[in-house]
Amino acid sequence: MRLRNVKDAYQIVASSPYVVVPTKELYGNFKSLFNNDNPICLEIGMGKGDFIIGNAKRFPNINFIGVEKYESVMVRAIQKLEMEDLPNLKLIRMDANTIDLIFDHEISTLFLNFSDPWPKKRHARRRLTSEIFLNKYDSIFASDPHIIQKTDNIGLFAYSLSSLSINGYTLERVSLDLEHEDDIENIETEYEKKFKSKGVKINYLDAVKYLEK
Amino acid sequence: MRLRNVKDAYQIVASSPYVVVPTKELYGNFKSLFNNDNPICLEIGMGKGDFIIGNAKRFPNINFIGVEKYESVMVRAIQKLEMEDLPNLKLIRMDANTIDLIFDHEISTLFLNFSDPWPKKRHARRRLTSEIFLNKYDSIFASDPHIIQKTDNIGLFAYSLSSLSINGYTLERVSLDLEHEDDIENIETEYEKKFKSKGVKINYLDAVKYLEK
Repeated sequence: MRLRNVKDAYQIVASSPYVVVPTKELYGNFKSLFNNDNPICLEIGMGKGDFIIGNAKRFPNINFIGVEKYESVMVRAIQKLEMEDLPNLKLIRMDANTIDLIFDHEISTLFLNFSDPWPKKRHARRRLTSEIFLNKYDSIFASDPHIIQKTDNIGLFAYSLSSLSINGYTLERVSLDLEHEDDIENIETEYEKKFKSKGVKINYLDAVKYLEK
Repeated sequence: MRLRNVKDAYQIVASSPYVVVPTKELYGNFKSLFNNDNPICLEIGMGKGDFIIGNAKRFPNINFIGVEKYESVMVRAIQKLEMEDLPNLKLIRMDANTIDLIFDHEISTLFLNFSDPWPKKRHARRRLTSEIFLNKYDSIFASDPHIIQKTDNIGLFAYSLSSLSINGYTLERVSLDLEHEDDIENIETEYEKKFKSKGVKINYLDAVKYLEK
């Protein structure tokens, strides 16, 4: 499929059976989309979809929702899905800054892969691991908040480690060279494949915020 | 001064006015060595002493104690001190594994610089940020345990981040490229100078374990 313009992307996204428009009825009830009680994992910034599609294929008993801001990017994932039948995958075209209005205590794990590092200090609040976002995430999780992040950007990674820790998360696992960790299962993103081929090290963290019982 | 053999090193260390032998009387009372109530910072693995000597010079109102296992290494620090008069610096020749028998609720900050990474998993307990060591450190601190670590080793650094977090420390600050952080004051170690000249990035963490009041 060749895209002639942005309008094509909009139409392709809007008409894909994988794409969901959030509603009041879905809030707290996303499991109705999957017709089962399997855990729901969320990726914010799914990009061209390699990670979320790879996961949906590998783990049929887990549900996956991918969120992406740009139709022009999401359309690439939809093209990859044309020959697939993945009942455990849904996509939402939205900005992450309203994520707490979309989901209500129903996400098991949040994946943040190669998020925009927003390197300038005055933009730190826009990073997806800033306190502002961590507070928003609190109400989307079904149980203890659980975030897994991958990034090549050492500034964003250092910031995330500290921000998560200060905001009550325990860093269950950290790696500064994901490719060489034998015991971490990894599905690569588009970015990751590119970086790896250049010898860039990938940073990884797995963080849980244990709620008082 | 030229060292002819290990026996020379032993004698030089033993006769240095900077070197202290821990005693029962000093346990909980190291401030008596300094004749003041200034905070006491500790470096485990001071090596040839550039970091602890540099700190002692720069911060005359803070007391510093450097611990080193090997006389053959510590003697290099003592040679540097021959022309110095630093009343706020003491050195102890000892193995870190008995640190909790030496100090009693009297250390303000613990520095761990370029510690042995012990890369093999079966040696993880020997790393100075393993749970075993973190438990030992608990009773040496005057108040909230506070550890600052620098290392070029990404395996040790990832391990430390997770181990500190799991054991109740908050990561107040993390950097994966210390040289380019304008707002972190840094006194370089011997290793650091060498690594920096080779373009190796230095990792840094500042962690506090907030005690229940």
